[in-house]
Amino acid sequence: MITYQLVIEGSYFSSANFDKADFTPESLICVDQSGIIDRVISVTDNDYQTVKQVAIDNNVLKQVPTGSYLLPGFTDLHIHAPQWPQAGLALDKPLNEWLNTYTFPLEAKFKDLDYAKKVYQSLIQELLANGTTTGLFFGSVDTNANLVLAQICADLGQRAFIGKVAMDNPEQTPDYYRDESAAMALSETETFIQKLAEMKQATGADLTAVITPRFVPSCTDETLQGLGDLAKKYDLPIQSHCSESIWEDQYAIDRFNLRDAEVLNKFGLLTDKAVMAHGTQLSDDDLALFEQQQAAIAHCPISNAYFGNSVMRVQAAHNKNVKVGLGTDISGGFSPSIYRNMQQAIMSSQMLQDSGTPAARLSASNAFYLATIGGAKALHINSGQIKAGFKADFQIVQDQYFELSSDKSSEIFERLVYHTNKENIKQVYVAGKLVHNNQGENNGK
Amino acid sequence: MITYQLVIEGSYFSSANFDKADFTPESLICVDQSGIIDRVISVTDNDYQTVKQVAIDNNVLKQVPTGSYLLPGFTDLHIHAPQWPQAGLALDKPLNEWLNTYTFPLEAKFKDLDYAKKVYQSLIQELLANGTTTGLFFGSVDTNANLVLAQICADLGQRAFIGKVAMDNPEQTPDYYRDESAAMALSETETFIQKLAEMKQATGADLTAVITPRFVPSCTDETLQGLGDLAKKYDLPIQSHCSESIWEDQYAIDRFNLRDAEVLNKFGLLTDKAVMAHGTQLSDDDLALFEQQQAAIAHCPISNAYFGNSVMRVQAAHNKNVKVGLGTDISGGFSPSIYRNMQQAIMSSQMLQDSGTPAARLSASNAFYLATIGGAKALHINSGQIKAGFKADFQIVQDQYFELSSDKSSEIFERLVYHTNKENIKQVYVAGKLVHNNQGENNGK
Ligand SMILES: [Zn+2]
Ligand SMILES: [Zn+2]
Repeated sequence: MITYQLVIEGSYFSSANFDKADFTPESLICVDQSGIIDRVISVTDNDYQTVKQVAIDNNVLKQVPTGSYLLPGFTDLHIHAPQWPQAGLALDKPLNEWLNTYTFPLEAKFKDLDYAKKVYQSLIQELLANGTTTGLFFGSVDTNANLVLAQICADLGQRAFIGKVAMDNPEQTPDYYRDESAAMALSETETFIQKLAEMKQATGADLTAVITPRFVPSCTDETLQGLGDLAKKYDLPIQSHCSESIWEDQYAIDRFNLRDAEVLNKFGLLTDKAVMAHGTQLSDDDLALFEQQQAAIAHCPISNAYFGNSVMRVQAAHNKNVKVGLGTDISGGFSPSIYRNMQQAIMSSQMLQDSGTPAARLSASNAFYLATIGGAKALHINSGQIKAGFKADFQIVQDQYFELSSDKSSEIFERLVYHTNKENIKQVYVAGKLVHNNQGENNGK
Repeated sequence: MITYQLVIEGSYFSSANFDKADFTPESLICVDQSGIIDRVISVTDNDYQTVKQVAIDNNVLKQVPTGSYLLPGFTDLHIHAPQWPQAGLALDKPLNEWLNTYTFPLEAKFKDLDYAKKVYQSLIQELLANGTTTGLFFGSVDTNANLVLAQICADLGQRAFIGKVAMDNPEQTPDYYRDESAAMALSETETFIQKLAEMKQATGADLTAVITPRFVPSCTDETLQGLGDLAKKYDLPIQSHCSESIWEDQYAIDRFNLRDAEVLNKFGLLTDKAVMAHGTQLSDDDLALFEQQQAAIAHCPISNAYFGNSVMRVQAAHNKNVKVGLGTDISGGFSPSIYRNMQQAIMSSQMLQDSGTPAARLSASNAFYLATIGGAKALHINSGQIKAGFKADFQIVQDQYFELSSDKSSEIFERLVYHTNKENIKQVYVAGKLVHNNQGENNGK
């Protein structure tokens, strides 16, 4: 018999497909030493009691309390890590002013590694506390600050995909905050890739470097092409923004006489490992290009309400077999919570439908799929489901049940989607390791 | 020198006008025995230390901890109290199905007063914990259940405006849940008015009866007219729904050949004490009628995302001198938090502007005004401001500051608006009385 590192006993919800979340009562979820779910044992299975007893003897049994449920951890596909100090600030400013007056000066401060350390510590703790087990991060321009972020993710147990931001176009970036040249943007990116690989080797942490042109306007052709080449050379994920706003769409046409998505594709940046934020302005042809390239979209509904000029068509993208997950877009979005973004995704989709787009409405099950399976597929990781062979990324969430509310599993599911706040997320695990404990216990067992 | 029941020492935010929230550093807010703010003493005033020392001697000084701020309590202008058990459920259903399959059967259960007691206890605790000091409530059809709600508000210290729901139109209400006749609807309403007055007398609680036709479709002409007459006879506030949806608008035209607002006005239900929920479909002429009658609108942005068919034009209403406040619309809205509705009001207004309505955007200061002064004006109560002569309704809120975020007062204000969760609301006071304590202290002093 395998010696498990963790056995969780409890009921759980896991997305079955885009339209359906499954409830499974009382089970044993057995996590092997590599952090993978080895088996899920039903209470009707013969060896349930035996496996449970061995787990007790080995002191690795975690029982989900009555009234709490196990959910997969969430994937956040779009986080600007250095923008955490300004989450919720200046959101009434136009994008241009928001970038130049607030965002760029803030990101420039991360050259100071002490500053970086304090901010990133706070951010990663907050994300884990909100049930986010995997994050896809934009760092800043500065390579060493990005390594600080990576080290903190390693220390705190956050599964992290991290990019050194490349931005060298003098026409669209301030002189105090840009890569000095295309050569510098590319060599620093390559340095970051190599140093992150070393850190991964040394720590065993689940860290991946990501090719990260800020967005088309902030990069020269040379940098865009060079980054596409690096993505191919190292077979790495890519992240950027695509068609976030009317302005961004028009910029691509003015400079390249192409759609924004076509520009990314032309430079080798729209691969099956690409995750593009927002896509609020994507046309049907753009979606067809995403589908052809098997590129994914990070839907950031809270941010889009402020800066997106319209609502991204999630149902249309899904129907065209385009991969979609959710992102908080800290700090274009003010909330670090994927729950909040699930809720806003539903509300925004209803508003999109009301304004004339048929069949745009997302259900709670759709939103849950995006937060779990959708994010995992975008990053090609086996996570987001509670199932043998998947990464043991979990959150234990307390249902906001009160006497005389319903205890039908479908209604519990809706309560979990609509009423989970940080305080209700009692424990969070990444690859079987406890990374957040809000239960007042010492070891979380 | 007056003996105060409470003196609070701290910094505070209070709305100065629709566009501006004021910050005031370190002050003494002195609350008299009737629960009114008698004075606000600045730290530069001569008798600051004297008054403070007397408060200490009398054991009535409450010091707001460093990093926390005093805010006015919020007014929630639209709550369906009996719908609390289904908050967040079945929101993917069309309004009609949502009412008939979920809402009406649930509300009908409140004839069982034990059930009512348990649900209302949970709801009122939750509202207070979210900083809501005044609530405008739809009860259910049953008079005794509404008296249970009133008694719980009295016991827990919630300032409450409560209506017995009148609904007697057999074509638009189910046989198991309606007033048997117009005569019954009116006599039960009058009974509730009188019993509530007795309870107010006996308890000294701040309770007001509200004339409450569910909405035009659910009432016969006789009931609508009779309720208008009762509002006049007793000089009472009125609440209902107005132009919530395209369907509701069309219904008024089909039945009366009038706009929904005109129907309400025709029956004497659109007075200067009327608070009408939603108003997403109000035309410019409707707004002019609201202005002429000095009637108020309860803007419920979360609910409207689901059921409103579009976004209510808050800026347009405000510019036409129509009173507007905020409502959660439990359970058309899933959240009991006015903070969440402030956030959604801002996001929805940006989306309204993006979809072609110029100058629709609300700022954080606008939303804060709606939650405080806007709600108070709608109900003709002196609350929502921290100022001599106003009711001592407060919340003490912990700023989500972390090392290296900004401590400029304008940025603290934005953090409070965007990042306050229930767990950050440390204490809540209504008329100077502690009604919620989340600080682990025994007496809140
Ligand atoms: Zn972004
Ligand atoms: Zn309502």
